[in-house]
Formats: sequence, structure tokens, C-alpha cells
Amino acid sequence: MSNDTKTRGRILRAPENFVDRSLAHDITTLGLNEERRGFLRKGFLAAGAALASGSALAQAAKGTAFEGDPNILKLPEHATTLGKPVATNAYGMPSKFETNLLRRESPGLTRVSAASVSFTPLQGLFGIITPSGLHFERHHQGWYDIDPATHRFMINGLVKNPKVYTMDDLMRLPSVSRMHFIECGANTAMEWGNVAVPTVQYSHGMLSCSEFTGVPLSVLLEDAGYDKKNAKFILAEGGDGSGMTRTISIERALDDVIVAWGMNGEMLRPENGYPLRLVVPGVQGVSWVKWLRRIEVGDKPYATKDEAIHYIDAMPDGMYRQYTSIQECKSVITTPSSGQTLLDKGFYNITGLAWSGRGKVKRVDVSVDGGRNWRTARLETPVLSKCLTRFNIDWVWDGSPVVLQSRAIDETGYVQPKINELRAVRGTKSIYHNNAIQSWKVAESGEVSNVQVY
Amino acid sequence: MSNDTKTRGRILRAPENFVDRSLAHDITTLGLNEERRGFLRKGFLAAGAALASGSALAQAAKGTAFEGDPNILKLPEHATTLGKPVATNAYGMPSKFETNLLRRESPGLTRVSAASVSFTPLQGLFGIITPSGLHFERHHQGWYDIDPATHRFMINGLVKNPKVYTMDDLMRLPSVSRMHFIECGANTAMEWGNVAVPTVQYSHGMLSCSEFTGVPLSVLLEDAGYDKKNAKFILAEGGDGSGMTRTISIERALDDVIVAWGMNGEMLRPENGYPLRLVVPGVQGVSWVKWLRRIEVGDKPYATKDEAIHYIDAMPDGMYRQYTSIQECKSVITTPSSGQTLLDKGFYNITGLAWSGRGKVKRVDVSVDGGRNWRTARLETPVLSKCLTRFNIDWVWDGSPVVLQSRAIDETGYVQPKINELRAVRGTKSIYHNNAIQSWKVAESGEVSNVQVY
Repeated sequence: MSNDTKTRGRILRAPENFVDRSLAHDITTLGLNEERRGFLRKGFLAAGAALASGSALAQAAKGTAFEGDPNILKLPEHATTLGKPVATNAYGMPSKFETNLLRRESPGLTRVSAASVSFTPLQGLFGIITPSGLHFERHHQGWYDIDPATHRFMINGLVKNPKVYTMDDLMRLPSVSRMHFIECGANTAMEWGNVAVPTVQYSHGMLSCSEFTGVPLSVLLEDAGYDKKNAKFILAEGGDGSGMTRTISIERALDDVIVAWGMNGEMLRPENGYPLRLVVPGVQGVSWVKWLRRIEVGDKPYATKDEAIHYIDAMPDGMYRQYTSIQECKSVITTPSSGQTLLDKGFYNITGLAWSGRGKVKRVDVSVDGGRNWRTARLETPVLSKCLTRFNIDWVWDGSPVVLQSRAIDETGYVQPKINELRAVRGTKSIYHNNAIQSWKVAESGEVSNVQVY
Repeated sequence: MSNDTKTRGRILRAPENFVDRSLAHDITTLGLNEERRGFLRKGFLAAGAALASGSALAQAAKGTAFEGDPNILKLPEHATTLGKPVATNAYGMPSKFETNLLRRESPGLTRVSAASVSFTPLQGLFGIITPSGLHFERHHQGWYDIDPATHRFMINGLVKNPKVYTMDDLMRLPSVSRMHFIECGANTAMEWGNVAVPTVQYSHGMLSCSEFTGVPLSVLLEDAGYDKKNAKFILAEGGDGSGMTRTISIERALDDVIVAWGMNGEMLRPENGYPLRLVVPGVQGVSWVKWLRRIEVGDKPYATKDEAIHYIDAMPDGMYRQYTSIQECKSVITTPSSGQTLLDKGFYNITGLAWSGRGKVKRVDVSVDGGRNWRTARLETPVLSKCLTRFNIDWVWDGSPVVLQSRAIDETGYVQPKINELRAVRGTKSIYHNNAIQSWKVAESGEVSNVQVY
């Protein structure tokens, strides 16, 4: 097992014995006084009586009764010493015990690491917000830390008033803050070719979700006086060496697109487009142009290299579909997932993420028998449009081999397809836009692996 | 001006001249081809014609028209070179241009920095999510980075089955993810005594907001078999050297309290209680016990030192009010705010935060004349219960001195009070629970300062 699963996301064995010495020892660290100690012993006796008739949850290795210990007054060192001081001019970091939870590059995916991907470790994350330090990266020519004082943003083309903005100009404008997912069009690409990548980090980790803040593009287009008769498309141009340029329809540009500087409360991170990027909710990540420096308004699609050669869908008839942009409804179980190990039977919380580029997630169903039976999961709130939705569902594992799946349904009624349903329409040569149901197999040993179930 | 305002939060002067050479030079960096260059020149002529009749927004220094330049094909270096590679086993950090945006300790506030405060830089933040690296700190005996493999959590007292949980035990349980603010009861304390601290970071920065993930305390209490007849309160005990202990009513404990390990997608940060803290939505931060190791169920309040000596409200009659816990409805404008400078007249987006410990924010009004007239601000979605709400409102500054205020109203109908209304009831000797309307004065010079308006 690679070391990227040695983290909170890994499900470790609960203590074997109901009352074991190591736990009894831990009791000694709880620092109870002598009066409480007597009470605890009574409590322990009561606990013993209750065990035989405990609920399913109680039987599910979810806590352990304890016995007294002569060292019960002993406290752990951190409860008796002066800890570290508050931060002074330092930016806070995760615990030293969480250093395995990192973005990781997929070795050999590209020839140059500056034109590569680092994946978000979904198997170790909770809720819907992706910590900015773990936001996935996909660069075409590397990333830059651009001085915001020198950065300029221009609007030109079919507009009455072409303009150039400084960052300070932009940040005085009416702003909005909205939570949205961003998913690379190539996320889950390897699955088209039956390549079972080892973890959900590599299968689905070109997916992140943040709260973005910026000025609506509609405000800028209105102010520039875009040509309401002839404007049909915009071109967004990034400031990187790849000359990244993407066409977006004027309807979408006027809808919910944001020229954003804020991400999860602070300025964008350099590798996510600092100081300015386009946020195009529901649309594949390549259109969220980073280091944004120009919007041109035009009357036809621009068919740039990144929309004529790359990010096109190979169809069964040998033709390629261009301008697929919306990320269709999709979901994935993040725990338990491939690379993790269930080390005993009993109760587990199955959890995962669902999303749709067309609006809100309406429902997520979970199967623990490879798609024969489905139960509806609990959705955590808020459930927002074009945003990740976290789902949870109870499960008691009986120790037999099972296949776990999740299936999302969005507010349009669209149902996440099986991989074979997708292949029937799209063939097998695609790279992009795979939103099929993901299957994780739990072996009798508890090991979870990536499998395809048809 | 202290260097903590030299950041995005500071409002810098927009370029003086509508067409200036420095901007024209920047146009040269946009890398347009010769065909487009001719078009741009035409666009520039059109822009010139439109300027005289521009909208209020257009007149508000929100962008600058441009002229052509012989170097128009010249690109900035970062657009012609290979950038940096994707992250490989590194945790992402903010831009080097954002290094002034940090938590800061208030010098001299306490004798020992391990028992002190570091404040969140609200003046430079966007939206509602506080980046975990900037989450405020308030420690009573310093912070610790506790090994989660050795951490234990116990439930005892009036329960049938006292239990000890490992982190792995807890993380298998049904979990919820919810966004909530946390505010120290002592936030805005200095304002009781008319001390006008220099920035919103120090006046309101013991306030943060995150998405928390964990197991509902109600699940644990039910499973432990709490005594439904006699249980009236719980005691939460932290693992730090201060022996932090807080009483919470059983009704609240069974309502929305979470035993949490996740914060903004990842594990709690060490200075915020890693690996386990209590989340007590709507209640002052001291009750969100960090490094949580024990919950005891009892039949009366515990009156521990942290609720008998500290965190009590001095009343006008010389008595102290105990067990004030709910953080009442409050708001503050974060930009423009004290320490920032408006360097020209014109359009600004006034933005700030509102919150209520009793539920959702219903409305936020903003005054630019010291409370005589109010306009209703736009609330960003989602508006969640016991969570920060971001508000925005348009404003054109005419260059005269003004006083900016915000006033929040929550879903119970409660209206955020003026400081004098609060003093009429609570006197002037309080430290805790000041939720009064905050006033920022903008001088003719554009400098913003902290003032009290009665």
C-alpha cells in the first residue's frame, strides 16, 4: 500500500479485546480525582451488564468500556505543562501527524511536471470545502506567483469601452461569494480504459470545492458596453506560457461566471491563478482560466488549440465532439475507498461526494451489493447549486466480500450512469467527461480495491 | 499605520490619469496579434467617445481605457516561460505577496503568549470561510500537537455505559458536516471601555467560521445510555494544562453539538484542538472545548473556575451574571474599516460579516451617516444558522467625512443594539458579550478610524 493512504482516511482496527490493558492504561491519563474514581468503577460494572444487550451501534466496535487502574491520577504530559504560544506572524499549518495527506502527482502521467496534475486526497477529506493547500492542480505550462500590483485585466472585442483594470480597480466593484466545485474534464479518465488506479485520490482527485469571491463577469461586460446584438461568445485568456484560451457562450458569461480573486476566504493561491481567475460554475476546470488577463467579446467560437485539439471527446464513429463543457452529475464514495482497509467487521459510516454541473444534487443512493439494491443516503447541508454535496449512510459490514457504489441524481432528474451505459453512447476511446458510477470492492480481508462492475 | 493593513484589505489608489503611460505599457504585455491590434485601436477610439457619458459605476475609477503602443506584441516573462511544477508532497501556501495577512497577537494583552490571543485578519478576508491558517486562537495554557493514535475520549457520569473511544472508534460513527461561526465571548471587549483598537482584526478578530465534521454528541449520549430522568447538564473537559472545563445544558448537548475532528475539509489544526474538539453552535468559543477528552453527564451545573471566575458579565449593580453563553446577533463592516485608507472618491463595495447565535441572519442594514439613514445590504448565500453571513452594498464616496455602520437583525427579530443601549442594561464594567453596532469614521483624507457613536 502506498503511503498516501497512511492517514486519517485509513480505517484502522479498533482494539481487539473489549477491555484491554492499553485502554485501561489510557484511562489513567484522564486525570480523574479519587471521588470520581469510585464512581467510574460502578459505571464500569453497569457497562458490563449492558454490553450483552447493546444496540447494533454499540456492538460495532464504537467504544470500549474500561476498568480502573492504580495510576488513575496520572495525567498526560500535555495536560500538566505549558503549551506553545499563539501564532505571531506565522501562517498556521496542519498537525505533524497529518503530513501524509498531500496533493500527489501521478508519476509518469506527463513528461514535464510543470505540465502535469497533482491530485486532491479525497480519501482523507471531510465535508465539502477543500483546504486550499490541498486543491488539485492542472497546469499546462507551470504556475507563477504574479505580483498583483503589476497584474492587469483587459476587456476588449465587441464592446463600446475596452478597458484595463488593476487589481485595486476590480476589488472596489460589487462582489459576490459563492461555493462551487471545480472538476477537470479529464477527471476519472483512466477508467475509460479499464485502468484501475490505486486510490480515489488518483481516480477522482482532479476535483475540489471552494468559496470563491469576485465581481460577476456580467457587471464587467455591462460596464464595457458589450454589443448586445452581435456578441455571442467570449474568449478568456490566461497569463501563463501555454497561452491558455477558452471560448464561453455569452449566455453563460452573463449568468453566473465570476472574475474571482478570493478562494476560501483569502486571495487565490498562486497555483490556482493568483491574483485572478475565471470561475465558470458547472463547467470543466480548463475553462476556469487562471492568471486571467483578458476577456474578448466576439461573435463566434474561437476554436483555440485548447478546444480544437485538447479537451475533445472521441466518439465511437471516429469523430470528436467539441465544446463539451458541463460536468454532468457524478458521485463517488471517498471512505471506504480503494487503498483503505477495513480491519474488522461492524459499523461504518460510508461517506462520499456528489455534484452536478447543472444544479443541485437531489439524491444519492448507495449500494453495498454491486448495484442490486440501493438505499438513500443522508445529504449534509447546505446543498448548493454546482457545488459538492457530502453524503453519509450507515453500514454494518458482516465480513463478506461486497461491492460499494454510489449513484447521484440531480435536480434535472438526470441519473449518474453505469460505465457500460456511458460506453454504449461514447465508445471506449474517450479521455474526458467520465461521470460513471464508481465501484469499490471490499475483500474478505477488508482490503478495498478499484474494480469495474458492468 | 501598522504593517498588518498592508495587504489586500487595504484600498489603494486607482491610477490618477484616465490614460496614463504605465497602463499603456501594461497593454503591451497582453500579447495581442497584429490583426487584433488594429481592432484595439478602433476600440480605444470608441472608448474615448463613451467616457463622457459613462455610468456612475464607470466613472468610479473602476477601470481605465487604453491607447496603443509599439510594443504591443511584447509579453510578460511569466507568459513566455515554463512555470513551476505541480506540488509533489508539499502543502500549498499563500502567495509571497500576501505574507502580511496573518493572525496577530495583541502585544501586552496577557503576560504569557501561551495564554493569549491571536486575532483573525478580518480586514483582508472574503466570503464566510476562514482559512484554517488564519483561524483565531485563544489558549489558556498554550497549544499542543497531540498524537491521535494515543488520544482517548471518555463519556462518564450519569450514563449506563461509560466508554472510552479511540479516534478510530469515533471516526467510524455517523458523522455530520456543518458550517458554524465561533466567537470568543471576549470579542470586542475593549470597546466597553472606549478603547478604540486600531483595526477590525483586533476589535472583532476573535471570530472565525469553518465547516466542522464529527459525530453528533446526541449519538454518543444515547449510546452511552445517559440517564434521561436525572441528566440536566454535561461537563466538557479539555486535555490542556489549564484544565478547561465547561458546563452545557443537556438540551443543548442533545441538539446541535458535535464532537468534531474535521475543520474545513481536513483534520482540526493543533491550535484549534486537534484531534478532537467540541463544536457548540451559537455559543461562545470557550465552550468549544479543545483537545476534548471527557464528557461527564450530571444533574447540576459544575461551576468550574472557567465559569465561576472567568467568562462572567459584570452588571451595573456590582453583581456578575454567570453562564451567559449565546453570542447574540452582531455584525461588522470589514472593508472599509479602521486602518484602511480610501485614496480617492468614487465607487466602493462596502462589505462585512453578520452572525447570530440564535439562528439565521435575516437582514443587514448599512448606514453611511452615523445611523440616521439605513439601506439594506445584499446577503451572500448560503445564509446558514449560527454561521457567518457575508453582506455587500454599493457606495459612492463623495469625499466628505462619514461614519459607516452596520446593523444586523436575526430570524428571531432581535436587532443588534447601539453601544449605549447595551450600556443602559449592562453597565460599563463588562468585558464579555459586546455585540454593539461598530462605527468606522472615514475622514476627508480617506483614512478610516475606530470611533464610538452614541
